[in-house]
Amino acid sequence: MVGIGPGDIALLTQQALAALGDCEVVIGYKTYTRLIGNLVNDKKVISLDMHDEIKRAKLAIKKASQGKDVCVISGGDAGIYGMAGLILELLNKEEKDRIKIEFIPGIPAVSACASLLGAPLMHDFVVISLSDLLTDKELIEKRVRLGCQADFIIVFYNPKSKKRRLLFERIWQILMKYKSSHTPVGIVQNAYRDNEKVEITNLKDMLNSKIIDMSTTIIVGNTKTYVKGKFMITPRGYNLARGKNRRSFTR
Amino acid sequence: MVGIGPGDIALLTQQALAALGDCEVVIGYKTYTRLIGNLVNDKKVISLDMHDEIKRAKLAIKKASQGKDVCVISGGDAGIYGMAGLILELLNKEEKDRIKIEFIPGIPAVSACASLLGAPLMHDFVVISLSDLLTDKELIEKRVRLGCQADFIIVFYNPKSKKRRLLFERIWQILMKYKSSHTPVGIVQNAYRDNEKVEITNLKDMLNSKIIDMSTTIIVGNTKTYVKGKFMITPRGYNLARGKNRRSFTR
Repeated sequence: MVGIGPGDIALLTQQALAALGDCEVVIGYKTYTRLIGNLVNDKKVISLDMHDEIKRAKLAIKKASQGKDVCVISGGDAGIYGMAGLILELLNKEEKDRIKIEFIPGIPAVSACASLLGAPLMHDFVVISLSDLLTDKELIEKRVRLGCQADFIIVFYNPKSKKRRLLFERIWQILMKYKSSHTPVGIVQNAYRDNEKVEITNLKDMLNSKIIDMSTTIIVGNTKTYVKGKFMITPRGYNLARGKNRRSFTR
Repeated sequence: MVGIGPGDIALLTQQALAALGDCEVVIGYKTYTRLIGNLVNDKKVISLDMHDEIKRAKLAIKKASQGKDVCVISGGDAGIYGMAGLILELLNKEEKDRIKIEFIPGIPAVSACASLLGAPLMHDFVVISLSDLLTDKELIEKRVRLGCQADFIIVFYNPKSKKRRLLFERIWQILMKYKSSHTPVGIVQNAYRDNEKVEITNLKDMLNSKIIDMSTTIIVGNTKTYVKGKFMITPRGYNLARGKNRRSFTR
């Protein structure tokens, strides 16, 4: 299981490169097999559609059971809303004992987007997917509501799709109810890919953005988040005015 | 600003390697400058103590203002509880215009630990630091309470230090109040470093773990999380029993 990061080959880890170099078969969603195409010219590459995850997972298990060295790739980190879970869920007992599985972490979308916005994630945050195909809308709304009440920074994956636009408006209403309309919002589309777009706006104006779709990640600040030039910053809590270095654990 | 990932050099991205290779000065907490020591033999390396973050940041700004190409390194991702925020906060207007800053994302602890546990982060999650030096205890407790009520997977950074043990027990009491005592808990100490230790236990027994300190990350499951062999899995919501592929957005 290999996380290939947001898209730019320069953001693959050395471990991911080594795994892709060593394997015999690469299986993944076609957008991702295309992104790493040049790295796996000499491999058997199986590209499948967005909604073929179960097929992808079963095929990978079958090939691995036959003794093949298989890389299943995920965009971002295979361990965050990625293919890692499905593979483990589908393994039967015999396969579980026979196949050796390794998870190679990748740069997740949350890190990639934060890096293009400045430093929005210096404090506690939640990550919520707005895809309601595998999660009830009510649970998504509840999570946003409680996330606001706890003053978390909120990161949204998959905010909108062609068929799903109303949920995003409903979520915006919840955010407006609990957070100040001036709360900074960072919006990143196609991070580290062609047509990358980055916007910093505020909660009030968020719905006007033209770059929100399935390839977008949104970061909504907490009560302390502010904008400085082209950067979105959530302070960690240092008392900088007094020049005093309170003991802390920033790494 | 370079995130160096959890510790193993194989988990640096190519972009991070390139930045470290090109720069003149490397500034970081001494544990991290040691981890990447072999990569930056030929550079001026400035290693500072854990609690010298403001000093580190000011020094980096000073060197960069003098025209030096400086890498400030953070463990994991510089953008998640890392050095990115402090640098941006401390920049004055003149420096902000003069210095070109780039943020190179790294594999964050949350990804590194998840990859060693299986697939615990297939659904919405919160990340909470239990360091109470820059955050009020009450706010930390409130976030844990609301995180439980929303049935998030909860990831804890910095769960315990030598001086801070009681807060962790208090947090455990909150978790026990809201979550089942059988909830799977993954505990990873020194991920991808010497003395790496991985445990999968449950909420009831979590306090008995001997590997919880400042170098540990803990992942507490949601109501759906389960253990299969040596793996911790949070299902995404596929209806696998019926063999039906509900449309979804797993990448």
